[in-house]
Amino acid sequence: MKELIAPDPWTVVQEGFDPVENRVYESLFCLGIGLFGGRGNHEEQYSGDTLPGNYLAGIYYPDPTRVGWWKNGYPDYFAKILNAADWKPIHVEVDGEPLDLATAEIHEYRRVLHLRTGELERTFRATLPNGRTVAVEAVRFVSMTRQHLGVIRYRVTPIDADVALHLTLAVDGDVVNEDSNYDEGFWTEVSRSFEGSRVSVVSRTRKTGFLACTAIDYEVRLDGESVGSEPTAVDDRDRYMASVVDVEVAAGQTLAVVKYGANVTSRDVDGDDVTTPCYAELDEAAAIGFELLRTEHRAAWTRKWEISDVVIEGDPAAQQGIRFNIFQLNSTFTGDDPDLNIGPKGFTGEKYGGVTYWDTEAFCLPFYLATSEHEVSRNLLRYRHRQLGKAIENAEKLGFRDGAALYPMVTINGEECHNEWEITFEEIHRNGAIAFAIFNYLRYTGDEAYLLDGGLEVLIAIARFWVQRVSWSEQRDAWVMLGVTGPNEYENNVDNNWYTSLMAQWTLRYTAVALDIARRLDPEAVDRVAAAAGLDEDAERAAWADVADRIHLGEDPERGIFLQQTNFLDKELVTVDDLDPAERPINQHWSWDRILRSPYIKQADVLQGLWVFEDRYDLDTLRRNFDFYEPRTVHESSLSPSVHAVLAVRLGRLAKAHELLLRTARLDLDDYNNDTADGCHTTSMAGTWIAAVQGFGGLQVVDGELRIDPQLAPGWTRLGFQIQFGGAWLSVSADAGSVTVENRGDRNVALRLAGELREVPHQETVTFPGRS
Amino acid sequence: MKELIAPDPWTVVQEGFDPVENRVYESLFCLGIGLFGGRGNHEEQYSGDTLPGNYLAGIYYPDPTRVGWWKNGYPDYFAKILNAADWKPIHVEVDGEPLDLATAEIHEYRRVLHLRTGELERTFRATLPNGRTVAVEAVRFVSMTRQHLGVIRYRVTPIDADVALHLTLAVDGDVVNEDSNYDEGFWTEVSRSFEGSRVSVVSRTRKTGFLACTAIDYEVRLDGESVGSEPTAVDDRDRYMASVVDVEVAAGQTLAVVKYGANVTSRDVDGDDVTTPCYAELDEAAAIGFELLRTEHRAAWTRKWEISDVVIEGDPAAQQGIRFNIFQLNSTFTGDDPDLNIGPKGFTGEKYGGVTYWDTEAFCLPFYLATSEHEVSRNLLRYRHRQLGKAIENAEKLGFRDGAALYPMVTINGEECHNEWEITFEEIHRNGAIAFAIFNYLRYTGDEAYLLDGGLEVLIAIARFWVQRVSWSEQRDAWVMLGVTGPNEYENNVDNNWYTSLMAQWTLRYTAVALDIARRLDPEAVDRVAAAAGLDEDAERAAWADVADRIHLGEDPERGIFLQQTNFLDKELVTVDDLDPAERPINQHWSWDRILRSPYIKQADVLQGLWVFEDRYDLDTLRRNFDFYEPRTVHESSLSPSVHAVLAVRLGRLAKAHELLLRTARLDLDDYNNDTADGCHTTSMAGTWIAAVQGFGGLQVVDGELRIDPQLAPGWTRLGFQIQFGGAWLSVSADAGSVTVENRGDRNVALRLAGELREVPHQETVTFPGRS
Repeated sequence: MKELIAPDPWTVVQEGFDPVENRVYESLFCLGIGLFGGRGNHEEQYSGDTLPGNYLAGIYYPDPTRVGWWKNGYPDYFAKILNAADWKPIHVEVDGEPLDLATAEIHEYRRVLHLRTGELERTFRATLPNGRTVAVEAVRFVSMTRQHLGVIRYRVTPIDADVALHLTLAVDGDVVNEDSNYDEGFWTEVSRSFEGSRVSVVSRTRKTGFLACTAIDYEVRLDGESVGSEPTAVDDRDRYMASVVDVEVAAGQTLAVVKYGANVTSRDVDGDDVTTPCYAELDEAAAIGFELLRTEHRAAWTRKWEISDVVIEGDPAAQQGIRFNIFQLNSTFTGDDPDLNIGPKGFTGEKYGGVTYWDTEAFCLPFYLATSEHEVSRNLLRYRHRQLGKAIENAEKLGFRDGAALYPMVTINGEECHNEWEITFEEIHRNGAIAFAIFNYLRYTGDEAYLLDGGLEVLIAIARFWVQRVSWSEQRDAWVMLGVTGPNEYENNVDNNWYTSLMAQWTLRYTAVALDIARRLDPEAVDRVAAAAGLDEDAERAAWADVADRIHLGEDPERGIFLQQTNFLDKELVTVDDLDPAERPINQHWSWDRILRSPYIKQADVLQGLWVFEDRYDLDTLRRNFDFYEPRTVHESSLSPSVHAVLAVRLGRLAKAHELLLRTARLDLDDYNNDTADGCHTTSMAGTWIAAVQGFGGLQVVDGELRIDPQLAPGWTRLGFQIQFGGAWLSVSADAGSVTVENRGDRNVALRLAGELREVPHQETVTFPGRS
Repeated sequence: MKELIAPDPWTVVQEGFDPVENRVYESLFCLGIGLFGGRGNHEEQYSGDTLPGNYLAGIYYPDPTRVGWWKNGYPDYFAKILNAADWKPIHVEVDGEPLDLATAEIHEYRRVLHLRTGELERTFRATLPNGRTVAVEAVRFVSMTRQHLGVIRYRVTPIDADVALHLTLAVDGDVVNEDSNYDEGFWTEVSRSFEGSRVSVVSRTRKTGFLACTAIDYEVRLDGESVGSEPTAVDDRDRYMASVVDVEVAAGQTLAVVKYGANVTSRDVDGDDVTTPCYAELDEAAAIGFELLRTEHRAAWTRKWEISDVVIEGDPAAQQGIRFNIFQLNSTFTGDDPDLNIGPKGFTGEKYGGVTYWDTEAFCLPFYLATSEHEVSRNLLRYRHRQLGKAIENAEKLGFRDGAALYPMVTINGEECHNEWEITFEEIHRNGAIAFAIFNYLRYTGDEAYLLDGGLEVLIAIARFWVQRVSWSEQRDAWVMLGVTGPNEYENNVDNNWYTSLMAQWTLRYTAVALDIARRLDPEAVDRVAAAAGLDEDAERAAWADVADRIHLGEDPERGIFLQQTNFLDKELVTVDDLDPAERPINQHWSWDRILRSPYIKQADVLQGLWVFEDRYDLDTLRRNFDFYEPRTVHESSLSPSVHAVLAVRLGRLAKAHELLLRTARLDLDDYNNDTADGCHTTSMAGTWIAAVQGFGGLQVVDGELRIDPQLAPGWTRLGFQIQFGGAWLSVSADAGSVTVENRGDRNVALRLAGELREVPHQETVTFPGRS
């Protein structure tokens, strides 16, 4: 854990330049917006350690698989999100000397990410090796209203001498992925163009054949007047094109450059012409100008915050953490395109490639369900539905048949990319999360018609998988689920992982329920779905029911706990307190076999199930399981603390819950795991929202009923959050004594608040007494 | 399975040239002798598909590890036995046209491996594209008496025209390993030399710095007279040097070339001069000449066969198979050097790198114990003792302490090379085999003094490992062994693998026994060993006894079987008969997860334990376990059928045993697994001997007593084999009615024959009635 960022409710501030932590700051100061984004690299040249990163949503490369020992069923490639052309570079020379923060003497360096407006602001003074001192002020944003566009205003003021400024404004497509498996080049150049201030590079990805045009335009003004020499071109490297201008600037005068960057890919257009629409973006941006672009961008962020903000008063560290997390989530996925999803690092880094993990359904969906228009969540569901064919192929590759589907562990286009057998083939609980997401979407939105628009097909295919995946144990007289890896990846190839089997059981039962719901809506449509899937309804329903009714779910009656896996209690039942702190995190200090046979749990597993189905289990059951598993959980997955936080709140352990919430909320801001340099933990950020709103806010939907039950962590004076629910929009604000609910929607809403059924009329604000 | 080789008792014959199976034949026609060896590549140039391979014992390269996802504890490299300079090339041009079997028209091609004499003979006639026809006869051997030397006699006879022959006699060090992880070059050139007919290349291995000199000399004769132009040099590639001569040969005349090749490495010498001793080998060889070299070589093989031959009359397929296997084993390891071991492919291929697997102790040692001077086996034990420090380091890397040792899964210098966590870290039964080998050596040789010469140290270190590797299960009130992979690699990360736990229990008890034995021999020496190991004898003995007494060994009382692992009976208990033959071998047709959760067993596991400790278990116990596990064993390891064969003989199932013996015996001759192209399964070949001699011969040593109990498979008329035992040498020959034992040693031997105690006086031959 590092103290990099001072707590503040609405900003993330770096005070002073720090070359050692440069990569971490580059991750924290990432800006993205649905279709593209990139790391907080400097505009100027920088000869120090840096991880340049610009990413275009959905543009990937199938990097050939690298393994030591091949196992049947491994995929051929790992899809890597590609480092793409950079639209940002503004290289500056002052009297022939490069402005490079690695060689200059730097004063008053300050970088501010304005969470409220999505703007990155940077100010500093630099004294160059040639003795010249300049003051720089840079403002950057990627437009929330124009998802192809980025804008920079870059101002330079010579302090103590008249200087000649030499500016190189580039599109730099000469980039690589640091984690390429075989050092293959991922891009080939298609064309480069230079037309004065307008410069572009069009590249094509190898193998996948995506086209991408990145183009820039700019204007240079001195005291409001256009200035500068006639631009000249620099194109001395492949996939690189720059426009160069020279300006004489007097001491104290401020040269202002506004640079527009646009990215358009072949995903955005029919046909191959990515340049024309890219240029159109630039034309429009230049016509509107920096100020108006910023105004509309700020207005869009204001709307985003209105429906997604979480207020925590009395705890600026938590407040800052959760806002940073919400900012990243809204930057990464805007929900406009059902072929996009939420990468584990968003646009903040290239690690983990792929895009889609079970994180999406298990952790991110609840956030988007409660804080976005329902179309956003629906597009996450449609993503999986569009990939159903690939999931069925994937299952066939592993020996399943008759339309059973196994969704990939990691994917970008529906094909499996992961290649560790114990995860790729065995961490099958992801199928359960994908099925449950459909139910979760329905209970928040009431949009039952989605079942006929894809939901049912996905449920049937997953139910078929579970039926085939279990085997019959004569000695148990039960269906068993052998050879699985649960959410706790610190156990591999175990039998009867309780969480996995529970999700299977639930899917099998819910699929039958979903068929009933859908048939009530439109029996003929159900018949069409059934016919297309080749569903033998009576026989398959019977099989689903049989497996669901007779699946083995391990319990220890003595301890009153569910068994994470059949042999868990054979382990040495030590706890985290027995660990030498010097050996933590154990994944950096212990050999893999030692971790596997230890009782230490990487992330919520049985407790994950108790969270997913929290309405099913009484508090005593929860307490017994929590008290058994929590002390053995090392939380070495960023996805873990949030689930424990929710359950700790339920058990009234608010201090524990607060500790866990902070750990998630500030994971990247404090570089807790010493890996933020690679990028932020974007999908885990949804866990912060879960801990705050489902945990402290008490948000649940049970049998169609909305429930809240706000409680404040020690030190908190207020907790506020937003809920989208069945077309309604509630804004909740709780202090120590009362809970105020503002119904911003058009219909009255009934909800259960701390156990009491309440009603809030539309467009009204009602204050209720708080929890007694 | 392919029908490549017609059964014959003493030869392996290829009739007709077959470019499609060329790599398979290259494997089968490998020649090696302890210090070097190589594949059966042609002397001539060959433009078709070929796997050139020449290997120098103990000369390796640490190829950096390649994995998809790193796990703590993985080794940095995989030691690859290096493809080394080739001494064999004799490239021939006939009137300017290369003699290349890929382009010539070939007639009467015949290649014969003479097992009795260790000679490879090849004859053919070839019509070249230019119309010239030549007859070729090549004889090759690597000297059993001079382990640095190979010899070729190559004769060419133009059939129908006078021709100009252009001969290029090379040392070709310009070679690569096909399975290099990163296409690194493994060798650098040190020097090359040309002195007329003598040519040499000295190379150094990268990283490991081994030096190797490969040198040749030759003579060319026509009708007994030296002929040919003054040799000229060709050195147009790195690490390549050739001597070229031109000879005019009349139709019907025979040109005879004798080529001597010598290899000397820095392992053989003090200092860096590998050239002088290499030249000395050539000088001596040239002085002795082809015929006498062949005579002494043949005599040495005759002696080898006398003490190691197995005779199977009435079954030429089995006879040929076992002789081919014994030939390979004696070629691969001669037992002179305790730093050498038995590679899984010997000198026949480069796959699997490393050199030493548990195969050595579990399968090869019994063969060498019974068929070699005891120094050979002792050197195999010393190999592990010399690597004890590395085994302790390896265990420390995994979190063990206080002198516990975990021997590597794969090694060449004592360091672990393997990198699949489920094997590297979990297939720990290898430690048991290494401990048991010490006991096995003692019971065959009576050489108890070996305990003080290393045996005790190894046992103590392994016992310490087992004590630390178990953990206490409260619910079982027993020590458990969690997270292991047994010999059946089709289950990974299981709990309480019976075989592994049994070997652990045995080691713990035997280490205490060994301490007692050694103390009787030399109490002060034991004290020195104990002090050096820091042995707290009372406490550690108590811990060994406690773990041994209370270790969990799973049984199913209902079926009366031992449990391969705790959850085995949760599996769907289908058998191999339930498998679709089109899906076999399952490791080529099923995804890994499906294999893991199936009940199918790759190789003997519980039955391996019943074999190792066969004197402990009654026939009913054996039968119940055999009848449960054998039907579920797919024998997809080459190490598997032999163990099952022995047990089948014990159960009187001779037809089954015979089927299993043939599968091992002819694994490579019939290319049973379609992988002989990569090389032969050298270590598995010892299994053939085990099946024949321990199985059908009934050889056992129990409590110091030698037992035999020969039985004949269906169709067999005679089974003969040799036994070295406690300094004695018995030659056994059994037919349907009687067993004849010839005592070739100097002392009388008592043995139990088919249950009856018998004595055979020294230098006498006694015939006993056979099994009733």
